[in-house]
Amino acid sequence: MKEIVGGVCAAKGFTANGVHCGIRKNKSKKDLALIFSEKRAAAAAVYTQNLVKGAPITVTRQNLADGYAQAMICNSGNANTCNANGIEIAEETCALIGAQLGIPASDIIVASTGVIGQPLDIAPIAAGIPPLVSGLGDYSLAAAEGIMTTDTKVKEVAVSFELGGVECHLGAIAKGSGMIHPNMATMLIFVTTDAAITPEMLQKALSNDVKTSFNMISVDGDTSTNDMVSVLANGMAGNAEISAPGAAYDAFCEALHHVTVKLSRMIAKDGEGATKLIECTVEGAKTQQDAVTISKAVIASSLVKAAMFGADANCGRVMCAIGYSGAQVDVSRIDVSYISAAGSILVCEAGSGLSFDEDLAKAILTEDEITVFVSLHDGDGSATAWGCDLTYDYVKINGDYRT
Amino acid sequence: MKEIVGGVCAAKGFTANGVHCGIRKNKSKKDLALIFSEKRAAAAAVYTQNLVKGAPITVTRQNLADGYAQAMICNSGNANTCNANGIEIAEETCALIGAQLGIPASDIIVASTGVIGQPLDIAPIAAGIPPLVSGLGDYSLAAAEGIMTTDTKVKEVAVSFELGGVECHLGAIAKGSGMIHPNMATMLIFVTTDAAITPEMLQKALSNDVKTSFNMISVDGDTSTNDMVSVLANGMAGNAEISAPGAAYDAFCEALHHVTVKLSRMIAKDGEGATKLIECTVEGAKTQQDAVTISKAVIASSLVKAAMFGADANCGRVMCAIGYSGAQVDVSRIDVSYISAAGSILVCEAGSGLSFDEDLAKAILTEDEITVFVSLHDGDGSATAWGCDLTYDYVKINGDYRT
Repeated sequence: MKEIVGGVCAAKGFTANGVHCGIRKNKSKKDLALIFSEKRAAAAAVYTQNLVKGAPITVTRQNLADGYAQAMICNSGNANTCNANGIEIAEETCALIGAQLGIPASDIIVASTGVIGQPLDIAPIAAGIPPLVSGLGDYSLAAAEGIMTTDTKVKEVAVSFELGGVECHLGAIAKGSGMIHPNMATMLIFVTTDAAITPEMLQKALSNDVKTSFNMISVDGDTSTNDMVSVLANGMAGNAEISAPGAAYDAFCEALHHVTVKLSRMIAKDGEGATKLIECTVEGAKTQQDAVTISKAVIASSLVKAAMFGADANCGRVMCAIGYSGAQVDVSRIDVSYISAAGSILVCEAGSGLSFDEDLAKAILTEDEITVFVSLHDGDGSATAWGCDLTYDYVKINGDYRT
Repeated sequence: MKEIVGGVCAAKGFTANGVHCGIRKNKSKKDLALIFSEKRAAAAAVYTQNLVKGAPITVTRQNLADGYAQAMICNSGNANTCNANGIEIAEETCALIGAQLGIPASDIIVASTGVIGQPLDIAPIAAGIPPLVSGLGDYSLAAAEGIMTTDTKVKEVAVSFELGGVECHLGAIAKGSGMIHPNMATMLIFVTTDAAITPEMLQKALSNDVKTSFNMISVDGDTSTNDMVSVLANGMAGNAEISAPGAAYDAFCEALHHVTVKLSRMIAKDGEGATKLIECTVEGAKTQQDAVTISKAVIASSLVKAAMFGADANCGRVMCAIGYSGAQVDVSRIDVSYISAAGSILVCEAGSGLSFDEDLAKAILTEDEITVFVSLHDGDGSATAWGCDLTYDYVKINGDYRT
């Protein structure tokens, strides 16, 4: 497997586009994105577990009941959530785009992101669909721009890999910056691949993957109402269809995981207001679940996040988060180190704070990618979670999000 | 029952004091506080559930095993947590203050608050104890100052109430501003009363009280390592000792609850960097536990908190938090209003966002005490939780806490 340039158009038979249709007031911001597969594709998705769900989640779930789809459409600027006629609008969007593409409305994955609780007008979407479709091409970046809200960076990744000697491709675009604390799925991720795989195995691969990729991110502890990760596999690479576990399935999962972990790190690093990526790796936990619980507690702690923003090597913040995480730990065995491109430093050993070189600590924490390394010396469980620092800009962005 | 002026010296037989002994560098900040009862008193406490616990928690728990104590000592500036010799230092503190007061070391409640993971030196405490004891008097305020860290306001409350025709008093001091997300007990609260009550009934009253007072606050989601609420009841009011449930016990609980709720609100409003108190009242939940879960999720949401700072009436933030809280709700029945001294406004009805008067909403949210009122129309469960807004200053305070 190797990383290649591109996003959702890296796989054979996929085209994409993004346009400004008028949902967002700022005309320089694209607000409608489309991904289209020449061939009907095996499809899988995972969704937010928030009880307040965006209307598009309900419609997509219905459309994917048969395991197949051919296009993905997504608007930004309005989440189409907590709207009395939300389902109607999402279904109308599918009908309009299906008619324009010449495919059934039930083969569409539909998604929305933006403000919650404001009516979404179908008019700009209806007006935007003809240019959206007529402009389809190798435009993964335009689609990635069309789904952004407070994101500051476009997020796309692609890889090539071999299945039984056949070269396959898998690529994705993502958006996600605030309201990010996934529980099952997260944010909006659209993955395309030309590998041939059955809907059942595709769903299995995706459901398993998110546990150690997107579900290990938190920007602010708020699980969105509109999170969705979806994938289309159109089989155009020509490999033997994956229909059972085995070497080909493992190779597919490896390619998928490379892309999802990379996107997870990109999303965390581009968290609202963030200046740095905070990675927490926990080793030596009693169980893997304990390691997951602890690593997520550390990267989600407001106090750890603020200390990272200030490059303050306050090990008490990390110890405190480990202690309240809910995992069972022997506090007297905990070691904590900070690691970055500038070096590494042990700040807590066997549960007690150490005196350390403050200048080195400051240099390490001033980098833009920092690992908090926690050793529990109590078993074989390990996990890694990703978050970001808490900054003035997070407060600013969310103090007046709607205007 | 009526509220009276004062704090921990409002009850008969209690004196207090606070001094600067040198744990904190800033000489204008007191860092050692003492509360003393003339008579040995029934004692009760609840503690943090963080697995990483301050050494004073362990020592206090031992000292209160017999249900009695006579003094409370607390230092600020250093939490005496994650220190290899923490227990030793806490025990030495008890021995020194016991000797100076002429009481057993095992009758002392000891507490610490401040930086975690830095060794605590006994020398300044030893030097501070003689003036601390010789200066004991009606100095509840000095003691309240001695336990402050990032608090901006001194917190004390007292009430008088009658038990069987006898006038009793109950008062308290509190500290708490950051690392506040209680789970069982919270922060440091020292309560004194001259009511006569058995240790068993006192513990029962306190354990029950914190469920609807301190356990309903969150400033930042971080449960401290040093949280403790403790109470001394010296019986000097002369009422018949409360040794069983009944009218006198209920009257005592009412007085205790008045003081603890008032302190809970004061702590939330003085949360690190906060500009306003956010109260969330949930009514009509299926169960009381659901109401508790939802109200805490709303006041703990970073997005709700940032929106409140910006006076942005974004009902999507509240709906989102309700949805991911974990409580079972019928989303289609949820009403949400904002209420303050400037009026009230319904922003969400039957699960859908409403158009509303933005000027009125802004005026309501610009006040410094705001209630988010959630009606679920699904049962009789209700609860109220308290938090604060998320501000630039929270980030500033915690970006470099140790310096």
